[in-house]
Amino acid sequence: MSDDQHSSAIDPLLDLREQLRRFSKERDWDQFHVPKNLAIALSVEASELLEHFQWLSEDESKRLSAGQLEKVREELADVLLYLVRLADKLDVDLVRAANRKIELNAQKYPANKSRGTSKKYTDLK
Amino acid sequence: MSDDQHSSAIDPLLDLREQLRRFSKERDWDQFHVPKNLAIALSVEASELLEHFQWLSEDESKRLSAGQLEKVREELADVLLYLVRLADKLDVDLVRAANRKIELNAQKYPANKSRGTSKKYTDLK
Amino acid sequence: MSDDQHSSAIDPLLDLREQLRRFSKERDWDQFHVPKNLAIALSVEASELLEHFQWLSEDESKRLSAGQLEKVREELADVLLYLVRLADKLDVDLVRAANRKIELNAQKYPANKSRGTSKKYTDLK
Amino acid sequence: MSDDQHSSAIDPLLDLREQLRRFSKERDWDQFHVPKNLAIALSVEASELLEHFQWLSEDESKRLSAGQLEKVREELADVLLYLVRLADKLDVDLVRAANRKIELNAQKYPANKSRGTSKKYTDLK
Repeated sequence: MSDDQHSSAIDPLLDLREQLRRFSKERDWDQFHVPKNLAIALSVEASELLEHFQWLSEDESKRLSAGQLEKVREELADVLLYLVRLADKLDVDLVRAANRKIELNAQKYPANKSRGTSKKYTDLK
Repeated sequence: MSDDQHSSAIDPLLDLREQLRRFSKERDWDQFHVPKNLAIALSVEASELLEHFQWLSEDESKRLSAGQLEKVREELADVLLYLVRLADKLDVDLVRAANRKIELNAQKYPANKSRGTSKKYTDLK
Repeated sequence: MSDDQHSSAIDPLLDLREQLRRFSKERDWDQFHVPKNLAIALSVEASELLEHFQWLSEDESKRLSAGQLEKVREELADVLLYLVRLADKLDVDLVRAANRKIELNAQKYPANKSRGTSKKYTDLK
Repeated sequence: MSDDQHSSAIDPLLDLREQLRRFSKERDWDQFHVPKNLAIALSVEASELLEHFQWLSEDESKRLSAGQLEKVREELADVLLYLVRLADKLDVDLVRAANRKIELNAQKYPANKSRGTSKKYTDLK
């Protein structure tokens, strides 16, 4: 990442990517960080996040206590970190991929057909 | 991301957040996007990502075919999109949370004790 | 299960275990059915099951349509099959393990302290 | 399960189902045990099981230590218990569903076409 980018506005995902590379290198963890294992870890973290919501009603999930939110925030961070790390190992540009997916979703879910329904695009008429 | 966007230094996660807000509003989907449901969706997407790796060896997972990578890229995007959306609904700053978590991990996994081992920090000596 | 099977007292989980062993042997799939991969597959199937519920309200989840229930039934079956297969590979007696866990849960969640609350046992007073 | 129970031919899944009904009733937990929540819990438990394998090589996953196996056994039990509970709430006969699924899989994966390959049935020739 160039200093220019730093000085004007660091891309936070690139910054996280660099930090994670360094973190892993210092601990000789690249041997464990193969894509298969990182995909498992990402899924496990997403489930740990979900665990905090499992017995909450939808309404309760909207107003977490400060204690709950603190734990949830940490799980959200874990998901992001493994996501960035996995994308790095696969050489995928996350932001570009996400932007493409939004465009694709806009085609699959035209506003006029999908308004107010949670149906899957394959079930829209 | 276009050069234009780079030069105006938009934070890509904030940009995605705004796009998803608009996308959801246009479809009247905020009624479904309660944190509990978004946490489920995030976990489901992380599993769809994992599914692509389930029968691959570790080595095979390092050299995906172009076709496999294309599908994996799309799943990575889905995970990021639900992550951004959930964090938005919970008013969590993802990047700040991730940076804090890296600091915390650095304390839990001192380089000299965790080098070359995948042990959980509670099992490090 | 037919009455015949009941009267001859086949343990249905042992029967499934045998069928799966045969199924895998006929296809030379034991090379893929290592515990790590089966644990991934089990988790992926549990998520596919969950996917059917992700946008349903709690009430809607109680009254699935015939079509939804048919898909859900198939996912429940997939979870059971991978569970039986993984337990077989690890030489774990599932029913014995489940009975022990019920006893353990009875200690962790005494009826008088846990009545009407979904709190985790570590948070019960 | 004792030999006595075997000789009287109790179906172990039905026995677990009854125990779980009683357990939940004594704690007034049926209000939380709606299908959506149970599907979440099942998925979360399957991930906790997977967590034990995430950094193991395939070979290591075949020879767990006694300590690892003890934890894994408990997670397997949790998955079975939530699976039985969810099937009960949905009025699904798990064993019948599993037997049907094996038949379906036999059609999707003919032995001669699927031997020695982990390809999905949609990719078999």
